[in-house]
Amino acid sequence: MNVAVLGFGVVGSGVCEVLTKNEEQVEKRAGTALNLKYILDVREFPESPFAAHFVKDFAHIESDPSVAIVVETMGGVDAAYEFTKRALTAGKSVVTSNKELIAAHGCELMRLAQEHGASYLFEASVGGGIPIIRPMSQCLAANEITEICGILNGTTNFMLTRMIRNGLTFQQALSEAQAKGYAERAPAADVEGHDSCRKICILASLAYGWRIDPSSVPTEGILDVSLADIGYADSYECKIKLLGRAVRMGDGKICVYVAPHFVKRSDPLAGVEDVFNSITVSGDAVGDVMFYGRGAGKLPTASAVVADMIDIARGSTQFKQVLWTEAEEEMAISPALLSSAFYVRMKCSPDWAKSRFPGASMLARPGAPTDEVGFVTPVMFEGELREILKDETVYHVLRVL
Amino acid sequence: MNVAVLGFGVVGSGVCEVLTKNEEQVEKRAGTALNLKYILDVREFPESPFAAHFVKDFAHIESDPSVAIVVETMGGVDAAYEFTKRALTAGKSVVTSNKELIAAHGCELMRLAQEHGASYLFEASVGGGIPIIRPMSQCLAANEITEICGILNGTTNFMLTRMIRNGLTFQQALSEAQAKGYAERAPAADVEGHDSCRKICILASLAYGWRIDPSSVPTEGILDVSLADIGYADSYECKIKLLGRAVRMGDGKICVYVAPHFVKRSDPLAGVEDVFNSITVSGDAVGDVMFYGRGAGKLPTASAVVADMIDIARGSTQFKQVLWTEAEEEMAISPALLSSAFYVRMKCSPDWAKSRFPGASMLARPGAPTDEVGFVTPVMFEGELREILKDETVYHVLRVL
Repeated sequence: MNVAVLGFGVVGSGVCEVLTKNEEQVEKRAGTALNLKYILDVREFPESPFAAHFVKDFAHIESDPSVAIVVETMGGVDAAYEFTKRALTAGKSVVTSNKELIAAHGCELMRLAQEHGASYLFEASVGGGIPIIRPMSQCLAANEITEICGILNGTTNFMLTRMIRNGLTFQQALSEAQAKGYAERAPAADVEGHDSCRKICILASLAYGWRIDPSSVPTEGILDVSLADIGYADSYECKIKLLGRAVRMGDGKICVYVAPHFVKRSDPLAGVEDVFNSITVSGDAVGDVMFYGRGAGKLPTASAVVADMIDIARGSTQFKQVLWTEAEEEMAISPALLSSAFYVRMKCSPDWAKSRFPGASMLARPGAPTDEVGFVTPVMFEGELREILKDETVYHVLRVL
Repeated sequence: MNVAVLGFGVVGSGVCEVLTKNEEQVEKRAGTALNLKYILDVREFPESPFAAHFVKDFAHIESDPSVAIVVETMGGVDAAYEFTKRALTAGKSVVTSNKELIAAHGCELMRLAQEHGASYLFEASVGGGIPIIRPMSQCLAANEITEICGILNGTTNFMLTRMIRNGLTFQQALSEAQAKGYAERAPAADVEGHDSCRKICILASLAYGWRIDPSSVPTEGILDVSLADIGYADSYECKIKLLGRAVRMGDGKICVYVAPHFVKRSDPLAGVEDVFNSITVSGDAVGDVMFYGRGAGKLPTASAVVADMIDIARGSTQFKQVLWTEAEEEMAISPALLSSAFYVRMKCSPDWAKSRFPGASMLARPGAPTDEVGFVTPVMFEGELREILKDETVYHVLRVL
């Protein structure tokens, strides 16, 4: 079975490497050899062991009937979107790690695949090599999913880990993440939470069957997380973690958002450090199930892509279905309807905080200015909190998981 | 699509409950309704909402061509084995939670299923509701699995948690586990490690493609774990956990065993408490991936059974294959070939221990007798250790993970 890889970047080159290195294993599992026939890239790679496979024009791949599987590891929504549509229309199955494209056009592309008897698979789009798309859509299929909560971005988790463990500032942590190749030069997609947002939207769409549009999801990154916040969290036996959450409400709507949270040290999510990701799925029958592993990286992500290719080669019919559809009304609602305790760092006196938030837990940190107070409120709605704080100087507010 | 459930015990009744409670969800995911037609049990359940479905003779089910799926939740290898063979021979797919039967006759039953165009699925046999069978055989298919290591038995993990956290003795912990319904009256399968052994054999068979026979696997339970051992572990920043391990050796053989281990508190496995299970799978591409959740219990296990039924209803071809075969030579080898550090508790002087094990870490615990010493050896082979200790009074030896 012939394969074409679009984009010879980190993931694309990893796919070529896994296909070559584990050739025997892959053939045994797939029931047929997966032959790398083309690699599409505008760049030249004369030194690559795969140099003979490079082409520059997608039409080569599109018009070759011997290519059964196209691996799209280009990223972005422009050329990737166009080539995916053309490949599916030509009856070729497409495997991708492109979360942006799935979150934006997943519905349409799954439908297009179905119309042309092809598959459109995307295990690698969330959690890198962690099996999560298949387990959610298959193994947990008997459950009503009540909540999904995850650390979905390895870069920001690495940065928070370094800030918490080693006292680095945000900027220092970012520089280190960039030096190690975990963060890009333009790190906005990671640090502003957009990457986590796309992933929680994919998981929520899968769990609930409705497309959740990333642009409708309140998204807060880690730009405003300071060492002061980390100090208060520590005194409350918490770590600060960037979480994507999707919570099913009583009316069937889904509360979806991305934000940094206080997470109790005893919670398994607090133990997820460095570039690791972890996703907890709660089902009415199964209870909490957690998936943990490297959420990114060349070979882990490639391993998920190749697993999808093996499924296609085996002729699995499992994924020849449209896993979610466009809802007629907006299914994602604001976390304003989700009550929780809140951490607040603000300019006030402890007495003021205690009088306005009876039952609040007062926090302490070394070196706090005398007019700064950190505390955790009782469980309440965000609107109530904002109303009390509306005329005050508030430095930061975070939810407590 | 009509369904028959064999055995109305904990899991069987849970399956009936999930099918009824999540009927709409199940039908949507399966693409067809799953109708509970028969329940086979020798007992009477006149008060059950499912009373009308009970039959006492398997021939009823076997001879009804409208029954497409048989759920075997009887346990054991006698009647369960016979009925499974007869159901598969009649072309019916079988879903089971019966790890004993899979570990003993999985090969033969998968072959029989294949011959008759049926499926034989067993997601619920390991890890209760935790998705592990499918993720291993599908999502990690591109990997060479280098190691599987897991807390596979909820009962013993609950007991160890109570011993570590609350200072209960083995007997007290067992009584509490029995009172809570976690342990059976005859707890040997749990506390002697046989249940963990069957599960690691299933996982190893799946990962490596060869049948691993439980009777060939060295299995040590938690009967000999004392509060003294737990005290020494604590001083070494470790918890004692009962682990099943399968490690791929250089020659393709697999070192499989079950034993209590010292596990560093910083290891994610150490954070797995109470009745929870956790399985870490290491692959050459994906690195370490961990799966965590309730490893047993009525609804979690039922949720895995129903997921398998949904797959069959969807017509997935995925599992119409024989996932492992009988090897011509024994593939499982003894852990004697696996070097590690060892914890030793014995009668000797600290000086004796230091002289015989240069570089050993000496441990301490409150209330230790003056002639007792606890220490952790450097990394070595078990044979070397046993040779040094052969004439001594040794209370307990455990591997350090």
